[in-house]
Amino acid sequence: MLNTKTLLSTLLIFVPISIAAHFFEWGSTIVFITSALAIIPLAGWMGTATEEIAVVLGPNLGGLLNATFGNATELIIGIVALNAGLVDVVKSSLVGSIMGNLLLVMGLSMFLGGLRFKEQQFQPVIARLNASAMNLAVIAILVPTAVDVTSIGIQEPTMQTLSAAVAIVLITVYILTLLFSMKTHSYLYDVGVAENDADGQITPEEAGHEAEKVNLKLWIGVLLLATLTVAFESELLVGTLEEATNNLGLTALFTGVILVPIIGNAAEHATAVTVAMKDKMDLSVSVALGSSLQIALFVAPVLVLAGWILGKPMDLNFNPFELIAVAVSVLIANSVSSDGRSDWLEGVLLLAAYTVLGIAFYFHPIIEGIG
Amino acid sequence: MLNTKTLLSTLLIFVPISIAAHFFEWGSTIVFITSALAIIPLAGWMGTATEEIAVVLGPNLGGLLNATFGNATELIIGIVALNAGLVDVVKSSLVGSIMGNLLLVMGLSMFLGGLRFKEQQFQPVIARLNASAMNLAVIAILVPTAVDVTSIGIQEPTMQTLSAAVAIVLITVYILTLLFSMKTHSYLYDVGVAENDADGQITPEEAGHEAEKVNLKLWIGVLLLATLTVAFESELLVGTLEEATNNLGLTALFTGVILVPIIGNAAEHATAVTVAMKDKMDLSVSVALGSSLQIALFVAPVLVLAGWILGKPMDLNFNPFELIAVAVSVLIANSVSSDGRSDWLEGVLLLAAYTVLGIAFYFHPIIEGIG
Amino acid sequence: MLNTKTLLSTLLIFVPISIAAHFFEWGSTIVFITSALAIIPLAGWMGTATEEIAVVLGPNLGGLLNATFGNATELIIGIVALNAGLVDVVKSSLVGSIMGNLLLVMGLSMFLGGLRFKEQQFQPVIARLNASAMNLAVIAILVPTAVDVTSIGIQEPTMQTLSAAVAIVLITVYILTLLFSMKTHSYLYDVGVAENDADGQITPEEAGHEAEKVNLKLWIGVLLLATLTVAFESELLVGTLEEATNNLGLTALFTGVILVPIIGNAAEHATAVTVAMKDKMDLSVSVALGSSLQIALFVAPVLVLAGWILGKPMDLNFNPFELIAVAVSVLIANSVSSDGRSDWLEGVLLLAAYTVLGIAFYFHPIIEGIG
Repeated sequence: MLNTKTLLSTLLIFVPISIAAHFFEWGSTIVFITSALAIIPLAGWMGTATEEIAVVLGPNLGGLLNATFGNATELIIGIVALNAGLVDVVKSSLVGSIMGNLLLVMGLSMFLGGLRFKEQQFQPVIARLNASAMNLAVIAILVPTAVDVTSIGIQEPTMQTLSAAVAIVLITVYILTLLFSMKTHSYLYDVGVAENDADGQITPEEAGHEAEKVNLKLWIGVLLLATLTVAFESELLVGTLEEATNNLGLTALFTGVILVPIIGNAAEHATAVTVAMKDKMDLSVSVALGSSLQIALFVAPVLVLAGWILGKPMDLNFNPFELIAVAVSVLIANSVSSDGRSDWLEGVLLLAAYTVLGIAFYFHPIIEGIG
Repeated sequence: MLNTKTLLSTLLIFVPISIAAHFFEWGSTIVFITSALAIIPLAGWMGTATEEIAVVLGPNLGGLLNATFGNATELIIGIVALNAGLVDVVKSSLVGSIMGNLLLVMGLSMFLGGLRFKEQQFQPVIARLNASAMNLAVIAILVPTAVDVTSIGIQEPTMQTLSAAVAIVLITVYILTLLFSMKTHSYLYDVGVAENDADGQITPEEAGHEAEKVNLKLWIGVLLLATLTVAFESELLVGTLEEATNNLGLTALFTGVILVPIIGNAAEHATAVTVAMKDKMDLSVSVALGSSLQIALFVAPVLVLAGWILGKPMDLNFNPFELIAVAVSVLIANSVSSDGRSDWLEGVLLLAAYTVLGIAFYFHPIIEGIG
Repeated sequence: MLNTKTLLSTLLIFVPISIAAHFFEWGSTIVFITSALAIIPLAGWMGTATEEIAVVLGPNLGGLLNATFGNATELIIGIVALNAGLVDVVKSSLVGSIMGNLLLVMGLSMFLGGLRFKEQQFQPVIARLNASAMNLAVIAILVPTAVDVTSIGIQEPTMQTLSAAVAIVLITVYILTLLFSMKTHSYLYDVGVAENDADGQITPEEAGHEAEKVNLKLWIGVLLLATLTVAFESELLVGTLEEATNNLGLTALFTGVILVPIIGNAAEHATAVTVAMKDKMDLSVSVALGSSLQIALFVAPVLVLAGWILGKPMDLNFNPFELIAVAVSVLIANSVSSDGRSDWLEGVLLLAAYTVLGIAFYFHPIIEGIG
């Protein structure tokens, strides 16, 4: 964990470089790449700071903080991109984040973990419950597109209303999921919490004694600073996205589905893979499944409502291929994770699915309108 | 159970009211609403009478009676509506009945049961077998629409033939399912039968001693009377459906998918929820899954064949969104029920799926031709 | 086993008959039917010879031989038909082989086995792993069609490139699957190997003592002879396919999806059913699942690459109904097999699904271009 974190932190050098590239106008491609590289360690530090503060706040408030800030990077990039009018890129990056967590992160974890351990176990009850919640989320997100595709067409204001209604249902389910996991059925999640210890962080038990020692103010400062910097770097990233990806010969669809999610989720990727290689599959699987669930039940509906407020309305009407990609990602992730055991071949299957979908997005001829 | 039944029976007052509304021409909206309210307790009495007669007839003939009359209300409304030419409403109500049983009934049962009991158990083998049968039924019902959508179009006579062939396969499977559950593998279903006791009704064991005491003729009379009255009220309901729902600002699609199934299934809803709150989840889940299976394997194909006889041919070519709704209902119901345990959050997930689909049907712009 | 084999071998009489029918020009329908009947026992002998040689070669090389030649008949018919330009028939027969193995073979096995044994058990771990691999394969094969359907259309060269890329991913996964089952996790498959004994063939253990006795050269001769004869009969079959099926009033789609796979897989059908009736469900299920997996992960991508070499490019752009058929076949096969137990009703469900899909293909109005 420490090595990964150190490695990631060296990328902080790209914060000043990207700023320099912006002010001295080294070209949009360089600004795009350096700001992308700068966001990766910042997202990692936001995650660490969130967890440290959560420990001090205790399981309830802390859990809530984690649940709200767990995908803060995606949320910030999403709002900045929405504000810049890149509605399609935002929608694509939601699809890509779910796909990336379920296939790339879980696949890498199972593959690399499986190279070291013949079979790895994790709690199937939580995996199944997450699978059911994920199924609901995918169904809900699929519905507006399905209404559009199966009718003679639906007017944009109706689509907005439908999307907002779905968003409200999803946020309600998200809040109830938190109530379930933190209050009424928290005992189901105890294994995961105990193993949290394994990644070298302070557990709630230890925290009782050490709380005074933790410099809460310091971590709040780190969180604020990292959040502001991510917001700033997101502006650089979003502002150069269209021109840079054109220069690189990539479609907006590919950028949104593959590139942006990898940038936003790199820190989580590192965590999930690192703990999988320590045979802590419960934690690894719950990071991957939990993160994709959070995107679907919280980030996506919040962005729908945020778009409304920003006057840049974002509906849930996706390109049908994006829906197919999400649906098959959920299908194969459920199929692989529902039995509570994994091996390297299951990792290969997930990675192969990601590769095939990635190739398809690369060749997909629909160039969605940017701006 | 008694309270629910008493409550339902007070609705019988709407039988004379609806008749008065019809003869004194109080307007189609009032006739529609009062006949709908009248059907609910009548369906409940049909169910009770069927079960009482089934007990006297013994497990074999009684099981057959239950299997045939279990969804008699849907069948009667369906035939009356078919005869009135409301083919699309009939098709939509089949979709809505399956959706309603899997999501609304099972969701309410798991939610309300889960509020009282932390975790509830039921037999996963039967849930899985029902899931496989339900998968088959959905696949079969999906096939004619899929042929139509994936081709340059299929001529109506061919669609009729295809639908009839599928209907015959489905009825054959239904008969074999009865043979399985009542003859060759009845031991798998013993838990459910034993728990049947819990809803305060007479079990086969007790029946051996009490059979003489049961006034068989009385129950047959109740069944006949309730059946005839349902048929009459169905005429009132169907005759005013088009005008009344227009007045209420509802599309035919929404009426067929949401309103009609709630009217036809209210009694089953009450049973399933009541027994769930007594922690009899085996019975509750089997009512919900069994009823949806009966709709798909028996009511739907019988209506296809009945339409042929009535000269109002009904094919199995659905609006693709209806198919998506059924498919995702089955998917999430399977996902939630396959592990043989439930909690309140699983109920929430099913209810959320129902809500989202209901919203979508409300906004769906396809107004199918009525009449 | 012996009886089935003897029965099949009597069909060898159709080898000379079909050749006579060809040279004396008895008409394409007769050549088509007799060459089809001739291929069935030849495929059986190829299978037997492959297994006998595999025993001598030992588990590693032998396993590889089995994995490569296991669906040699499909591969030969496929290459001959590709070379004759019948690209759509080849694609349809891939779909039909997967469907046939999952629904017809597994359905017949579970049904006939279930008539004799109340419940039959098999190893669920392998069934689930196969299910996950099958899900991946279907997803991968679905992707090019999905890209085409969800876009304004994709140019043929791009479709070829996309299909070739998917084919390479699939072959890579296939090789890794062999590595998994033969090297790193072979212990998971031990039950299946032990039961192999049951079908009266020589096990590896016995082989150690008997290897000298086995006339290796004889079996290699049988394999070569059968392979060459299958190739020749395939030419007769393919050369008369278009005219004969027209005479019989069948569409090219129905021929490809239903007829050709039954001819190519008859020997495997016989094996799977025979061992199921001896309560060796592990072997029976692994033949059916393994064969369909081999088609998807090996035969299909090899044909894509072979088409490229032959200058008769075959992409993976299917008729959407073919995709639906494969997807629902995998869905219901997974649903039935994932719990590691079967009974006759589960067999009925699979057979009913096959029947419904067969009826649909019979009526499907798309007549794909032959030649």
